[in-house]
Amino acid sequence: MARGYWGIHEITARELDAGRFINEKVEEIRDAVGDGTAINALSGGVDSSTVTMLGHRALGERLRTVFVENGLMREGEPERVADLFQKLGVAVEIVDARREFFAALEGIADPEEKREAITQTFYRNVFGRIVRESGAKYLLQGTILTDVDETVAGIKRQHNVFEQLGIDPQEAFGYRIIEPLIQLRKDGVRKVGQALGLPGELFERIPFPGPALSARVIGEVTPERIETVRKATVVVERLLKDTGAFQYMAILHEDRVTGMRDGKRDFGQQIEVRCWDSIDARTATPTRLPFETLEKLAQEIIREVPGIVSVTYNIAPKPPSTIEAV
Amino acid sequence: MARGYWGIHEITARELDAGRFINEKVEEIRDAVGDGTAINALSGGVDSSTVTMLGHRALGERLRTVFVENGLMREGEPERVADLFQKLGVAVEIVDARREFFAALEGIADPEEKREAITQTFYRNVFGRIVRESGAKYLLQGTILTDVDETVAGIKRQHNVFEQLGIDPQEAFGYRIIEPLIQLRKDGVRKVGQALGLPGELFERIPFPGPALSARVIGEVTPERIETVRKATVVVERLLKDTGAFQYMAILHEDRVTGMRDGKRDFGQQIEVRCWDSIDARTATPTRLPFETLEKLAQEIIREVPGIVSVTYNIAPKPPSTIEAV
Repeated sequence: MARGYWGIHEITARELDAGRFINEKVEEIRDAVGDGTAINALSGGVDSSTVTMLGHRALGERLRTVFVENGLMREGEPERVADLFQKLGVAVEIVDARREFFAALEGIADPEEKREAITQTFYRNVFGRIVRESGAKYLLQGTILTDVDETVAGIKRQHNVFEQLGIDPQEAFGYRIIEPLIQLRKDGVRKVGQALGLPGELFERIPFPGPALSARVIGEVTPERIETVRKATVVVERLLKDTGAFQYMAILHEDRVTGMRDGKRDFGQQIEVRCWDSIDARTATPTRLPFETLEKLAQEIIREVPGIVSVTYNIAPKPPSTIEAV
Repeated sequence: MARGYWGIHEITARELDAGRFINEKVEEIRDAVGDGTAINALSGGVDSSTVTMLGHRALGERLRTVFVENGLMREGEPERVADLFQKLGVAVEIVDARREFFAALEGIADPEEKREAITQTFYRNVFGRIVRESGAKYLLQGTILTDVDETVAGIKRQHNVFEQLGIDPQEAFGYRIIEPLIQLRKDGVRKVGQALGLPGELFERIPFPGPALSARVIGEVTPERIETVRKATVVVERLLKDTGAFQYMAILHEDRVTGMRDGKRDFGQQIEVRCWDSIDARTATPTRLPFETLEKLAQEIIREVPGIVSVTYNIAPKPPSTIEAV
């Protein structure tokens, strides 16, 4: 292995001095990049947002921040993220790569293959091309210690752990990777992000998976199916945002179920809603939502999402369930 | 059309005089069958049980009652039904036709085609053969008025409405059909069944669909998948039998979802539980089960049914949902 992951020195949130950490990392980034330029991909999550702020403090306009619109995001996501960073004085460039992602996902039903298609499209095609064209020699990446642990343990396959992909970025893309958050876990990253001036709304958003809405579609990912789960996600996030739940989501099933339209039988699609109570995502239990909320979820999803005739609520704990469906 | 279904004179439960109705129908059956023999298929449902009792009152041992074990029944169903009728003095012959049904269902995922395969296997193959070999010239059938209505309206395709199947039984099988309950609806049949001495447990059982557990499997029906949904059905019926709900069921999905086994990700299957409050099955709402019950359902299904990692509860009303999934 090119890097000794096992030798990473963890900094716990408790022992973390955010101000000192920021100063050290700013220095390290400046030392590494020298008078060159760096680039980073912002997804709008806590990790990549924190890296963006850290990189901009270190490099100013010599860090180019790109938001890749892969067509798999939640409603209004690219604009929301760009606006938020605009207010913080950071220009974010939105690159529309929807067609490339949907072309790569065509005909794929297996979740691992979907993840792989998205990862490869992102790193090898879209972002690889952007980096090459930019001439940047450094890539800032928001990998955290939990990503490394989970990848090593085989629980998850993190898209941002390059070794897992069999990619040597220096060789493959001509750039070096800088991972300033790799000693931290989520709670540490939050402290750093707050100290860097990221607004509360960013931390209050529920976690969202790397493969975005494609992880919320069982079976093939098409623009139509993403649009269906996106619409259902709007309803679920609106109705559950004040529950205090750890995570909540809409999942589009591939199985068709019978429904009624104008008094006749007619096939339709099913949305599964999941809403989790959890401290650290390692174990989780379904939130005991009031039935009024469950019924409202079903009614509004059926009313607002074309093609949906049935809605379920997940009632199994993790383990053996997992937080996401695929 | 050979018969004027629209000319059927309905007898409401309110106006029904069960004793008089039974006497009339016993006479009609005796007149029709003369000194010949008749046959009927008993499923254990209220309609076919009532017809069995009525036929035996009319014909005694000249009515042969057959229970076709199609492999799609709930756990212990054939024995339970045979025992129950044994106690009432009616001998029931169990015919094991599991292999024929599973062979007919192989590779079929479409629900209508599954229903068709079961119906055709039942009438054209298994029961057709039994009737031919028996030499019986009359078939007693538990068709009720609601079956006719729903078939005509296109809401359901009742397996026991022969015209829908394009079958003239006289021509196809050499027997005539007698449908003594065709003027009644469910509540009327219950009154007649009770007057004929059928025990309360039979009426207290929740309704069960004609295609049996195959209607509870989304996708292909195999012996293994039927066994999975059968085991889940045992749990669901045990935990929900005292809820007073109109209907409750376990449905095996075809979609695979991620689960955890020994700390690693692993694919598994999902069971959907449905539990309905309803008066007449035309409209229905999910029963507001306590979360303790929902969690117990999930835990016990996961513990007792191999391969299941996830359990959901249906929260949509009918319409646009339907009571059964397929």
